[in-house]
Amino acid sequence: MDETRIETRLHVDEGLSTGREIGLDHGRAHFLRSVLRLARGAQVAVFNARDGEWLARIDGLGKGWCSLAVERQRREPTPEPDVWTIFAPIKRARIDFLAEKVTELGCAVLQPVMTQRTVVSRVNVDRLAANAREAAEQCTRLSVPEVREPVTLIELIAAWPAGRRLLLCAESGTAAPIAEALAAADSGPWAILTGPEGGFAQSELDALLELPFVTPVGLGPRLLRADTAAVAALACWQAVLGDGRSRPPRGAFLPV
Amino acid sequence: MDETRIETRLHVDEGLSTGREIGLDHGRAHFLRSVLRLARGAQVAVFNARDGEWLARIDGLGKGWCSLAVERQRREPTPEPDVWTIFAPIKRARIDFLAEKVTELGCAVLQPVMTQRTVVSRVNVDRLAANAREAAEQCTRLSVPEVREPVTLIELIAAWPAGRRLLLCAESGTAAPIAEALAAADSGPWAILTGPEGGFAQSELDALLELPFVTPVGLGPRLLRADTAAVAALACWQAVLGDGRSRPPRGAFLPV
Repeated sequence: MDETRIETRLHVDEGLSTGREIGLDHGRAHFLRSVLRLARGAQVAVFNARDGEWLARIDGLGKGWCSLAVERQRREPTPEPDVWTIFAPIKRARIDFLAEKVTELGCAVLQPVMTQRTVVSRVNVDRLAANAREAAEQCTRLSVPEVREPVTLIELIAAWPAGRRLLLCAESGTAAPIAEALAAADSGPWAILTGPEGGFAQSELDALLELPFVTPVGLGPRLLRADTAAVAALACWQAVLGDGRSRPPRGAFLPV
Repeated sequence: MDETRIETRLHVDEGLSTGREIGLDHGRAHFLRSVLRLARGAQVAVFNARDGEWLARIDGLGKGWCSLAVERQRREPTPEPDVWTIFAPIKRARIDFLAEKVTELGCAVLQPVMTQRTVVSRVNVDRLAANAREAAEQCTRLSVPEVREPVTLIELIAAWPAGRRLLLCAESGTAAPIAEALAAADSGPWAILTGPEGGFAQSELDALLELPFVTPVGLGPRLLRADTAAVAALACWQAVLGDGRSRPPRGAFLPV
């Protein structure tokens, strides 16, 4: 462990600057006081993508409330890879897992998409967002992925942003191996799309493959679960096109 | 779905040949009869790494027993990548997840290793093996990973097999990014080593880095959980050095 590491990191929406007071919501106040058993004066780190990471101290807490005093910056804000994870919703334990893992692997946006063979009809966006926030706090990133409301595949394609590429994880058909496709690809905004447990319908694949921004890739000879495919593809993307060259920010912490 | 795909795949140790009768154990017999509700005459696929995948039919079943008649081969045995996952044991839900994911990603051996900061002291090897078997059955691979008894890091190193390389997932220190290290590496037998939640002790890292067969790699700027690191590193390894170029074996099925 780096001695300058602060274990408790909290993502906050508020702007961060020296002297700023931040009140925590009931759930987090309870967590700091009753689970972590922190007391007045304890150090925590607060962060967001806009202002970076800051040292703060608990300057008051009681049953269900906690206020923090922001002291000074520990890490500058830094640009992060612009890669989305677009996934057909899957069962609860697996979707929780997916949200955690793609957050750790630096995904910027989680976008549920409804496809023909998607059998899960409801997505708890708040729950996904809470999982993503917790994972972001633990893995030292400065941003929390944005979790979007589900859309249909048609809506997704209709609103596709100019300049963003789509890596289509295709179980069948002709597609380049992922390492080869990524080595030949440009960095820049990307999204990774994985289908539901039953795969995409042939008509969906045909429509996707016609789109100029789509790059279909294969992930090897085994049939992967939807969550495994999303995590494996993002790991490869980060290694080749993302920030795989960077290291954890221990050296970036200013001394405490 | 490929119409020749048989949903129910069972790994069996017995040699497979036309006319062979195979009796299933109580648990699997119960699963086929009472969960899948299969009846006499239903098709299943049986497989192992030695004989490939074969078509079989249920030719008798009752409460707690089931016998299969092997008919003909559907897939030839094929060589699989020789990559081990060596991991410090972690909590139950996460170790289950790890076993499932690295099996889907084509790992040949799961080896738990006890390190200085490993806090989980017992490993349920039978449970891990059951998870690995189930994942292998679902992902269409022909082998089931071997799950080994835990060893200490010292024992692991002392018994290291000649010719096998070790990819060390190092959180800190100087290490090449994984994509770069793999691009410069030879294929052949490999193992991927990840540490416990608290990371390796410095003395362990120092000892590992002295070994001629070790390649330390970095997995980007975020601190990954132990299970995430193992899955991400294996996904990258398969993409670059493993069988990432191959596709799922639908075309390999003989017509039913």
